Amino acid sequence: MDDLAAGSAFLGTGGGGDPYIGALLCKAALAEHGDVEIKAVEQLADDAQIMCVAAMGAPTVLIEKLMSVEDAEFAAQALETYLGKRADALICAEIGGLNSTMPVALAAHRKLPVVDADGIGRAFPSLEMTSFNINGVAATPLVVVDELGQSFLLHANTVKAAEDLARPVVAAMGAAVTLAGYWMTGRQVKDAAVGGTVSAALRIGRALRRRDERSAVQHLLEALRGIDHYRHAYAVFSGKIVDVARNTTGGWVFGHCDIVSESGETARIEFQNEHLVARAGDRLLAIVPDLISVIDAETARPIPTESIRYGQRVTIVACSAPAQMRTAEALKVVGPAAFKLQGAFQPVEALH
Amino acid sequence: MDDLAAGSAFLGTGGGGDPYIGALLCKAALAEHGDVEIKAVEQLADDAQIMCVAAMGAPTVLIEKLMSVEDAEFAAQALETYLGKRADALICAEIGGLNSTMPVALAAHRKLPVVDADGIGRAFPSLEMTSFNINGVAATPLVVVDELGQSFLLHANTVKAAEDLARPVVAAMGAAVTLAGYWMTGRQVKDAAVGGTVSAALRIGRALRRRDERSAVQHLLEALRGIDHYRHAYAVFSGKIVDVARNTTGGWVFGHCDIVSESGETARIEFQNEHLVARAGDRLLAIVPDLISVIDAETARPIPTESIRYGQRVTIVACSAPAQMRTAEALKVVGPAAFKLQGAFQPVEALH
Repeated sequence: MDDLAAGSAFLGTGGGGDPYIGALLCKAALAEHGDVEIKAVEQLADDAQIMCVAAMGAPTVLIEKLMSVEDAEFAAQALETYLGKRADALICAEIGGLNSTMPVALAAHRKLPVVDADGIGRAFPSLEMTSFNINGVAATPLVVVDELGQSFLLHANTVKAAEDLARPVVAAMGAAVTLAGYWMTGRQVKDAAVGGTVSAALRIGRALRRRDERSAVQHLLEALRGIDHYRHAYAVFSGKIVDVARNTTGGWVFGHCDIVSESGETARIEFQNEHLVARAGDRLLAIVPDLISVIDAETARPIPTESIRYGQRVTIVACSAPAQMRTAEALKVVGPAAFKLQGAFQPVEALH
Repeated sequence: MDDLAAGSAFLGTGGGGDPYIGALLCKAALAEHGDVEIKAVEQLADDAQIMCVAAMGAPTVLIEKLMSVEDAEFAAQALETYLGKRADALICAEIGGLNSTMPVALAAHRKLPVVDADGIGRAFPSLEMTSFNINGVAATPLVVVDELGQSFLLHANTVKAAEDLARPVVAAMGAAVTLAGYWMTGRQVKDAAVGGTVSAALRIGRALRRRDERSAVQHLLEALRGIDHYRHAYAVFSGKIVDVARNTTGGWVFGHCDIVSESGETARIEFQNEHLVARAGDRLLAIVPDLISVIDAETARPIPTESIRYGQRVTIVACSAPAQMRTAEALKVVGPAAFKLQGAFQPVEALH
């Protein structure tokens, strides 16, 4: 669990909710219900019924209003009752932070396997920003529940409409809720998911926890370069956090942080839940959908945006997004323009 | 239908959506499906299943994005399917504007009776502002549908929470949607509804349409004084509209209009969908939950807030709200404080 949490914190690229909380929740569920099988995509029957369960909201709120397995079960059951079907396995909507570990906790509770895959290969702030959507899987019907036992079931015509209709209610529910949706078959998982990402998170987590003469960042880069999805991996900037601004609004957290290097150069990372772009002056360091993570030089822990503080010594590590998130089709949904960022996508391997 | 539309326009106190549109919709449905039975509350079986269907949104939008019987049927069916029950009769959520006539159109389509009652005895802008809620009937489960076939099924712990959670979706759906909710039994209707209000609207509409030597306002006041709910009725101000301000935001329309009398005195009406308070200088003319309606001196038509224009010659008619909307319990939900207005409720009969 600690490996999964650490790996997910990296892949969460600043968002996805603090993995520490997800890991606690998960450890408790595993202790009570036993181990969870991680099932390779190829092992799924084509007609298997698969469901996503995830936290939705602003990470700044998710560390105050804790998620629970009970809420996840409530959302899952409401969706199953509505559809008149039962899920055979769970899949992570995103392999990032809390959303990598919560499905494992629910899987333990339900004695179901978790698919070794997710819908992004990282974390992203909006419902439509998934390989599921890019490959035609509908997000709705979708159930959202809050910690007060309130719920809503949404039918929308597009995933973007689902996002636009659900987000204001998520904000009204306090910007931290649990959702069940993106119901799909094993066949759809094979066609649409980003495969192998739970294993990848475990591998990245293990690398981050190694303690020897080499630095955690060196181990991390080596691990990333050994994973096809993330093989273009670079330490792109190091320095001290000198400024951070956050604005929790509309159900997200927006902001930026500034890092000054020893030579006096300043890099800025902009985020919307997740890190979107890193620049040092005019020089682009990395941009969505590529991954940008901030690694604490002291603890070797990836720092989520809500935990960034003045004075932290950090290294920005950037790596390639999985190939299926970089296609022309995918870039319309998860590329710079989808976040209203200037300029075209430039692969991290072309920048370094 | 013209009587119901005109009476509902008066009882809509500026809101409830333009009754002209509701009347057109209704006439078409009656022409196609035949007459609708208006059933007295006492005739309902205690275990009869009753449902509300209503438009929700900003009246300024409701005149541009028209409601349809198909949307009402879609909402009604979604709620029935979810509950596994069929409605035996329909009831108006509010006897105001569009929301008095739309249930009649759906009732024609479904060959169901409409109960001679509603949930307010007038119109109000928020879901919780009903005698149903004041008497403990839950608004949820509640289905909201838009004209694109998208839907939202909500479970909330209180009617206020239902309002707070549904309103942002209503706004995101374009501030004009159709809802089905406030499912209740015949027993609950007897305990909670404001009775006789469909008949009252018809009677008021007939009075407004009389053309003889006496003015429409005189006929109106006489009709109101003959209806127990509205028996304290007064023409409280006459003059010319000299200013109107509207702001459609958050799924409502807010604003005010100013009226100057021949003697040069100015009265101001403030509204949130419906007229909330009328004052002439420091002098209170009427305040919620009492009814404030603006009657066109030329056409004798009650003017909804979205149709108020510079230069119209008007009379403000105010009358008492039904007694059950003036209790201490009710005033917490529909009194001045519920609209963030200064000062306590003062019955219109104490002011004139």
